[in-house]
Order: sequence, then C-alpha cells, then structure tokens
Amino acid sequence: MPIYNAPTKDIQFVLHDLLKVSEQDIPGFEDLDRDFTNAVVEEAGKVASEVLHPLNVVGDTEGCVLENGVVRTPTGFKEAFEQMKEGGWTAMDCDPEYGGQGLPYVMHTAAQEPFVSANMAFNMYQGLTHGAYSAIHAHGSEEQKQKYLPKMVTCEWTGTMNLTEPHCGTDLGLMRTKAVPQGDGSYKISGQKIFISAGEHDMAENIIHLVLAKIQGGPEGIKGVSLFIVPKFLVNDDGSLGQRNGVAVGKIEEKMGIHGNSTCVMNYDEAVGYLVGEEHKGMRAMFTMMNEARLGVGLQGYAQAESAYQNAVAYAVDRLQGRDVTGAKNPDGPADPLIVHPDIRRNLMDQKSFVEGARAFTFWGAYLIDRAHKNNDADADGLISLMTPVIKGFLTDKGFEYATAAQQVYGGHGYIEEWGMSQYARDARIAMIYEGANGIQALDLVGRKLAQDGGKHVMAFFEMIKTFIKENEGNEALKKDFLDPLKAASKDLQAAGMYFMQNGMKNPNNALSGSYDFMHMMGHVCLGLMWARMAKAAMEALEAGASDTAFYETKIATGRYYMARQLPATSMHLARINTGADTVMALEAANF
Amino acid sequence: MPIYNAPTKDIQFVLHDLLKVSEQDIPGFEDLDRDFTNAVVEEAGKVASEVLHPLNVVGDTEGCVLENGVVRTPTGFKEAFEQMKEGGWTAMDCDPEYGGQGLPYVMHTAAQEPFVSANMAFNMYQGLTHGAYSAIHAHGSEEQKQKYLPKMVTCEWTGTMNLTEPHCGTDLGLMRTKAVPQGDGSYKISGQKIFISAGEHDMAENIIHLVLAKIQGGPEGIKGVSLFIVPKFLVNDDGSLGQRNGVAVGKIEEKMGIHGNSTCVMNYDEAVGYLVGEEHKGMRAMFTMMNEARLGVGLQGYAQAESAYQNAVAYAVDRLQGRDVTGAKNPDGPADPLIVHPDIRRNLMDQKSFVEGARAFTFWGAYLIDRAHKNNDADADGLISLMTPVIKGFLTDKGFEYATAAQQVYGGHGYIEEWGMSQYARDARIAMIYEGANGIQALDLVGRKLAQDGGKHVMAFFEMIKTFIKENEGNEALKKDFLDPLKAASKDLQAAGMYFMQNGMKNPNNALSGSYDFMHMMGHVCLGLMWARMAKAAMEALEAGASDTAFYETKIATGRYYMARQLPATSMHLARINTGADTVMALEAANF
Repeated sequence: MPIYNAPTKDIQFVLHDLLKVSEQDIPGFEDLDRDFTNAVVEEAGKVASEVLHPLNVVGDTEGCVLENGVVRTPTGFKEAFEQMKEGGWTAMDCDPEYGGQGLPYVMHTAAQEPFVSANMAFNMYQGLTHGAYSAIHAHGSEEQKQKYLPKMVTCEWTGTMNLTEPHCGTDLGLMRTKAVPQGDGSYKISGQKIFISAGEHDMAENIIHLVLAKIQGGPEGIKGVSLFIVPKFLVNDDGSLGQRNGVAVGKIEEKMGIHGNSTCVMNYDEAVGYLVGEEHKGMRAMFTMMNEARLGVGLQGYAQAESAYQNAVAYAVDRLQGRDVTGAKNPDGPADPLIVHPDIRRNLMDQKSFVEGARAFTFWGAYLIDRAHKNNDADADGLISLMTPVIKGFLTDKGFEYATAAQQVYGGHGYIEEWGMSQYARDARIAMIYEGANGIQALDLVGRKLAQDGGKHVMAFFEMIKTFIKENEGNEALKKDFLDPLKAASKDLQAAGMYFMQNGMKNPNNALSGSYDFMHMMGHVCLGLMWARMAKAAMEALEAGASDTAFYETKIATGRYYMARQLPATSMHLARINTGADTVMALEAANF
Repeated sequence: MPIYNAPTKDIQFVLHDLLKVSEQDIPGFEDLDRDFTNAVVEEAGKVASEVLHPLNVVGDTEGCVLENGVVRTPTGFKEAFEQMKEGGWTAMDCDPEYGGQGLPYVMHTAAQEPFVSANMAFNMYQGLTHGAYSAIHAHGSEEQKQKYLPKMVTCEWTGTMNLTEPHCGTDLGLMRTKAVPQGDGSYKISGQKIFISAGEHDMAENIIHLVLAKIQGGPEGIKGVSLFIVPKFLVNDDGSLGQRNGVAVGKIEEKMGIHGNSTCVMNYDEAVGYLVGEEHKGMRAMFTMMNEARLGVGLQGYAQAESAYQNAVAYAVDRLQGRDVTGAKNPDGPADPLIVHPDIRRNLMDQKSFVEGARAFTFWGAYLIDRAHKNNDADADGLISLMTPVIKGFLTDKGFEYATAAQQVYGGHGYIEEWGMSQYARDARIAMIYEGANGIQALDLVGRKLAQDGGKHVMAFFEMIKTFIKENEGNEALKKDFLDPLKAASKDLQAAGMYFMQNGMKNPNNALSGSYDFMHMMGHVCLGLMWARMAKAAMEALEAGASDTAFYETKIATGRYYMARQLPATSMHLARINTGADTVMALEAANF
C-alpha cells in the first residue's frame, strides 16, 4: 500500500520564504500569514492522506461502471466527495458573491496539491467543476451566474468541459456539433463529444455541461464556435431541478490510467442549451480560463511525481540490497539499504530537485494569476501567459518521467500493480496529453507567446533573471553554484530565441522544429531561477537563525543538485534547435 | 486495431549492407546470402503480422488466469504456439545435436525481431525456454542434455529462470531457497521464487524450471548458490513423463503490462532437483548466458518502439488536424494531415532514427556473439561483454521513451486502450526492469566492464571509431554530417572515461554517480557509429546503382537526423558526470 504525506513544510517554504505572500500588495494576500496558510495546508494534507489517498488504489482497481445510463463511481468516492463539500474545499477561491470563500488563487493552488497528489482521478470531479465555474463566472450573464454558480461552488452540481469530437481535438474548427436557435433565447444542441472527464457520475444532483458548438449559419471554422450551458437536468426559475435534458452518456472509455474518473462519450440529441457570452465567441470564452486550467494540469504532473517520489524514498530506505562500495552502512544487517547506492541517489535527487522546483514554479504562476486578476496587472498577465505552456508542457513531461523513475527504484515490484507505483506513472501520463497535448504547448510558446506584445514578456523574463543575478553577484555562496549556471542556461535560452528570430522569418519551420526543445529549455531555466531564489531564501533563513537548519540546508543542497545536474540540459536543447528544420523536414511523408 | 508490418528491407539492410554477413569468416555465415535471409525474415514477418500480432491486444485484455492451480493463457495463444513449433521457429539457432537448425545467432535475432514487435508477451514463452536451453546446453551433463534439450528445442517443453525471491532481486546472495542432497545425486528444493515469467501455463506438456538455490552447508552469500533443473513433471529414463514434482504456482501477478505472459509466484516444496554444473557455481552458469538474454531484452525495447512507431506514422498520415504553416498541403480537405507539422516530424524522426540505429546495434551485438562463440574470438567476446549493458540499458530506456512518444502522436486517443498505443508503452516498461534493472546495467558497465582485461575492450572500441573516421575522412559526403559529430561524441565519451579514472580512484562514488549518464552516452556513441556506417553503406549502394534510391536516401537522411539531433546529448551527460559525487551524495538518508 503506497504512502502519502503532504509536504506542508515545503509548501509553506514556497509561500513564505520564496513568494513572501503576506507581504505582497495584492488584495487578500494580507491575510495569508504563516499561521493561516499552515492551518489550511495542514488540514488539506490531512484530508488528502486520510480520506483521498486510501481511495486512490480503489479508484484505479474498480474504475467507473456504466449501467443503464448511470455511472457508478468507485467505492467510497461519494462519501469522500461529501467530505470535500462539507469541508468547504470546493469553494476556496470562488467569488463570495456566489458562496465562495474568496481566497487568493495561490492559496487554492497550495491546497490543491495534496488533493491531486493523493488522488488525481478523484480530484478531477472538482477540478472540472472549477473550470466550468470560471467560464460561467467570466462570461455568463448575471442570471446564469445566479442560477448555476452557487451550486457549482459547493459541488452540489458538478461541471464538465465539452470540446473534443471524434474527428477533431486540437483543430476545433472542424467541429460538427450544431446549435439551433429556438427563438426563445435557448438553443437545441446536437452532436457527439468525446473524452469528457466527469461527464456522468453519481456524486452530484446535477451536471452542468459546458459545450462548444456551431450555431447554424455562423462563420466557418473556429470563428463560428459558441459556448453553451447544457444542464443534465434543466433548472427551473426557483432553482429546483426540472426535466431531464437530451444529453446522455454513450460509453465510458477504457484508459491507461485515471480509472477513478469517468471519461465519457457524451451524446447531445436536441439538448436544450443556453449561450454563454456572445455568439461565435466560444473560443475566447474558453481561452480566458486556459491559464488556470493548464496550470492545474502542470500541477498534476509534479504532484504525481511527488507521490511517487515519497514512496521511492521509503522503499530505498527500507529495502536491503547490496553493499555501499565505500564500506558497509548497515554492517549488522544482511545488506545495506538501497539508498546508499550512488545511482539510486542520482535517481532520487533527479526526482526531488524537479518536484521542489516545479512546486515553486507553479505557485509563482498562481501568484502571477492573482496579481494579474486582482491588481489588473497587465505585465503579470503577459508573463503568466508566456509561462503557461511551459508550466503545462514541461512539468507534465518531467512529472511522468520522474513518476516512471520512482517506479524504477522498486525493481520488479515497480511493475506489479499491487505496489502502486504503476498507477502513478499511468495516471501522470494523461497530463501530457489533455488540456492541449504538449506539442501544442510548444507551438503556443514559440509560435505565439514569444512574440506576444512585441516580445515584451519574454524580454521581461530575461531581464528578471539578469537583475536577480546582478543583485546577488556579491553573494559568494550563491555565485558559483547558482548564479553562474543560471547565467549559462539563460544565455542558451536567449541564443535559441535569437536563432528563431534570425531563421524563423525565412522559414517558420526553423523555429517550429525547435519548439519542443525550447519549451524544455525554458522549463529548465525557470526551475533554475526558482532554485536560485529558493537557495537565497534558505540562506537568509539560516542567517536569521532558523531553528530547523537541516530543512534549509537540504533545500540548498537539493538546489545545488538541480543546477549541477539538470540545468546542463539546456546546451543539448540549444544544439538541437541550432540544426534547424533541414533534418526534421527532409523526408517525404511516404518515406517515414 | 493497431497495425504491424515486418520491416524486412531494413532488417536485410543491416544484415547485408552493414554487417555483410555472408562475407564474414564465421562458420555458418557463408549460407546467409540475401535470398536465404530474405526468405526467413519474410516468413517470420508473415507469422508475426498474421498470427502473433492479432493476439497482442487479446493477450493484454484477457491476461492469464489461474484456476485450481492451472494457468489458462489468452484465447488463441495455444494454437499460435503450435504454429511456432511447427514452423521450426523455436529451434533456429539451437544445436543440431539436439534437434536445432544450427543457424547463426544473428539470424535468430533477425527473425526474433518481428515476433517481439508483434507480441512481446507471447514471445516470452519461447524466449525463456531458449534461455533455459542455453544454460543446460552450456553447463548440463550429457545425460541432462539428451533428456531435456530435444523437447525444449521444439518447445514441447518450455523453460523458466528462477532467480528472484521476495526479499532479494539484484542481491542474490541473500537467497533463502534451500537444496538438500538426497544421496542419490538428486536434491530436494524448497523455497519461494517470484516474478517467474511463463512459470505455469497450458501450452506445453512439461515445464523445465531452472532454479537457483543454496545447498545446505555451502558457503555464505553469492558463493553458495547452485543451479538446478526442477521439472514440473519428473522425466522417466525412457523420456516419458513421470510423477508431478513438488512445485506449484502460488499466484499470478497483476502487472502494468505483458498481461499475456503469466508472471508467477512459484512455491517449491521439497521438489526434486538436479544439479546443473558444479556445486556453488550457479551464478557462473547464469552469467554465461547473460549476454544473449540481455541482448534479447534490448531487442524488446526497440522492437516495441518499432511497432509503436509504425502506428504513429499511420495515424499522422491519416489524421487531419490543422494546416501546414508554410501553405496547405491538402487544400481540398478540411485540414492537413498531422505529418505536415514540424513537431510531429521531430517526434517521429526521433523514433525512427533511434529504432533503426538500435536494430543495427543489436544485430551487430548478435554478430559479435557468433564471432565469439563460433570462432572462439576473445576480442569479440570482450567487446560484446562491454556492449551488453549498453544494449540492454540504453535500448530499453529509449524504447520505452519512444513507445511513449508514439502514443503522444495520437493525442487523447493514445490514452484510450482501444487504440492500442498504451499497450506498447506498458509492455515496453518491463524491459527497463527485468534481466537486471537498468541502474544495475550502468553499474556493470562502469564498475566492471570498463576496466575488464585492463580496459582493453573499451580501448578497442575507441580505436574502432578512430579508425573508421580516419579511413573515411576523405569522404566529403560523410565528413560533416557523420564523422564530425561522431568524433565530438566520442571525445565526450573518452573525457567521461578519463574523469572516472582520475576521480574514481580517490572515491568510487565519483564514477558510480555518473554511471547512468555514461551508459546513455555510450549508447549514443554506439548508435552514432552505427549510423555513420549505415550512411556509408547506403552511399555505396547508391553509387553502385541500387534501384531503390528512395530507400537508401531515406536511410542517409534518417542518419543525418540522428547525428544532428540525438548525438548532442553526449555533451549534457558529460556535464552531469563532471560534477562528480558531491551533489549526489550530499544528503543524509533522513533528509530525502
């Protein structure tokens, strides 16, 4: 049986030592003192490890079952979902106007991590609802908000996002689902949507589907897509549930992982739908909440790696196998624990230094979202827009890689389902795919975000690194181990950007062939920046006489590892990028 | 439903254009002319795609079922296994003395690839039998060989390898299974073995278990381990089957993949066993066949990637999504096929250039095994001994990575089991673990093989690269795209070796902390060498007026991709290695 313990201290370190949340001039941040955030994270961690984590394997083993149009979630999910509702965990950052607690998004993110680590499939029911809430909150009419949001904030009603169709995923312009105006302000929606997470289940009274569809007679392609609310049960004016709508689950998909979440084919057969926002502006409505949704998926990536890492460490400390080549560490035992072996440590340090860097990167992203929204800060908005594909793409690629690496520590036991390590890898795999496959993230980054607002945001990012290095150059403890590697990696990244500028003009494929490498490069530079900052914060804490010296020293040592052993990847990515499109585009399609 | 077509032309290219097998001065190689090998590979490919491939998904879905001590293999496996026996596919490289066909191992390897690509789990029943055959053939008495081998060559009886116990995998010195001499030359074996592939099933009359156990009163640890034959049914002197032996399957493991193979817990309860070779020399007996077994696992790695790649290409050509940024390629259709997009090509070229390089590397390894065995060539033996951990470790890591990359091309469909891409990733995952987890391969390479025979073999490898570069320096077509990158990568590898020599003496952890990176580096250099040679061979074929110019030109273009885009990884690995053990060993175990 796998273990999970919420890394409260690490989360607190990022919130306070790194981001200094309570000192930020952002509405609501003044309440985020150490005691308050500690209480929230501790309690979230308790729910995660005691309620959600024990159901993780149950969800994987039982999966969701469709019988007579009704989806049965795994044993215990319903009760756990009730606890989440009662604990107010579904309402944390929601608008108080509709029953939310109005906490900053960064606080929501900090509390989400343990939930996602403990049971990713379970947490998606709430996560999708949050996404649907955000879309209605941003684009719905006041009437729609009053009607749907209070129940969605409490998760009495859950939500879904319906984009994909069998023949179109990324390219939503090919969409066929139709919306026919009924003259009374409503529409009849018909078509089939696939890969609908939490599409149907038995944990809520009602399900509010958000559906992209084309209004007949509208523009061709992506410009003719509108967003609709399609409730499973129509909602009467007094808020009571009315008749069953024309939407039904067609089947549940058999997936590689996240078995606890019901991934549905949804059939819409003249279902009543209500337009959200303007006609034909559906994509814009979806895009406004994309930063949050993609940040949430990036979090899934590293949160699964965190869980897998905790178990790998426990196994490495417990399992006796072989002897330390420099002398027995457990001379009275039959063998030394795995953790004495350098290659086991290499593997564990790869995981640890990634996960902690990823957490800092994600929380920083959440903080930028708060700054953008609550302070109407356009620079923060531009910066998080730039970072979003990196958070999503890099953290999910690496999250899967390290969940798999953790599995490797177990040897043969890692491959046996009973030990639970396979599930972390299988669950983490989806995060690389959904919410825009990672190749699309790379395209978004290089094809769109780099040049956004005249390249202003990427320049600001480089400036931020330069300033940090400059301000701390006199700090000998930081310089060699942190600032110098950061400077080198940042130079590689700038050189790649330069290559794109010089060669992408004459042939965009020269840039796009290197987009994936650029995304990874930038991920490394971001984590390098986070580590340099965290090292500085840890050093300051030690200088200030912090009592828990081991914690802060470990933080610095882990950062040193990242800078020494992970950051050099930027030179490889640059070398790949610099070869351009020639070898990538050389073959005729028939010769693959 | 996934597809599979044996890459006969690519296999023939490696056998003849690269390895020039029929011109080699090795007994049996004179028969390997193009027509003969083509007929064999074509036929193997036919069996693979028509018989084995359709059962791949069946095996994954149904798995093996244990009922009343009997294991039922998936529907169709038994009939397919009969076809394999009847076709003589189980006997190819076996000793004619015992009913084998006596073909070179490289031919066996070439025929195995399609079988493994088409159905890895199925092919393991034969693969394990081949391993047990080799152990008895190398170390058994003449009486044992006469008694067991003829039936194992035909797979009327299958074989297993019993090493792992619940508390010991890598560190077999901790073994508890006991062998008690009975005074009549036989032993009574008692203990529990786990992870026994093909441990029990319904496709053979008898199962010959090879079991490692400790003879009571023998030396402690690994030096007291002996190897025993423990047949499921005892074999009478006339060859007929006698009484059921005291060995029984305890349970079948639920695994991440290879569901079609029954992975058993085997309980030995005073089972009759017969010593193979000498007392306490069991490990040596196992080690002699390790090169072959590990090469076979390396083949599994790239063979799964090959299957996954074929499907990814088919999907990328078929699926319409988005438009080529340089202008529509399918202007009359609603969108262009995925394969127009640079990042999809980047992904596919990564896969293709790896798989084809890996095939060359593996076949070259098989050729070295033939040269070592059939010519008693100690240099070839030393070289394959050096290469074995690289073939196993690098090809299985990358095989899994690229099976996963192929899955990514499918977007959401890649995560749905129905499409078959998840299975390739899940099946490929085990190859990184069994037959010595890849961390152990890295340890074997750096801790043992580099220094073997005074470092003679690694020096010979470097010399081989140097000579090839020197001999072809005047070849302008090769120089820039192939020889220069190969030289740079080889220099990186030598620099890493130098670092180990200079720093490993004072602290072996300086070398062992870099062992995994070194294994990957060396894998890249080996594939770089293979590609340089293949490019040369392809150029020669074109110069000689080969009619299939597209095939050879594609080969060269694919090689160019590998040299430009994959080989630069060596510089990253070197940078990691050069940081030594400090950051790897910094933390106390309690601080992970």
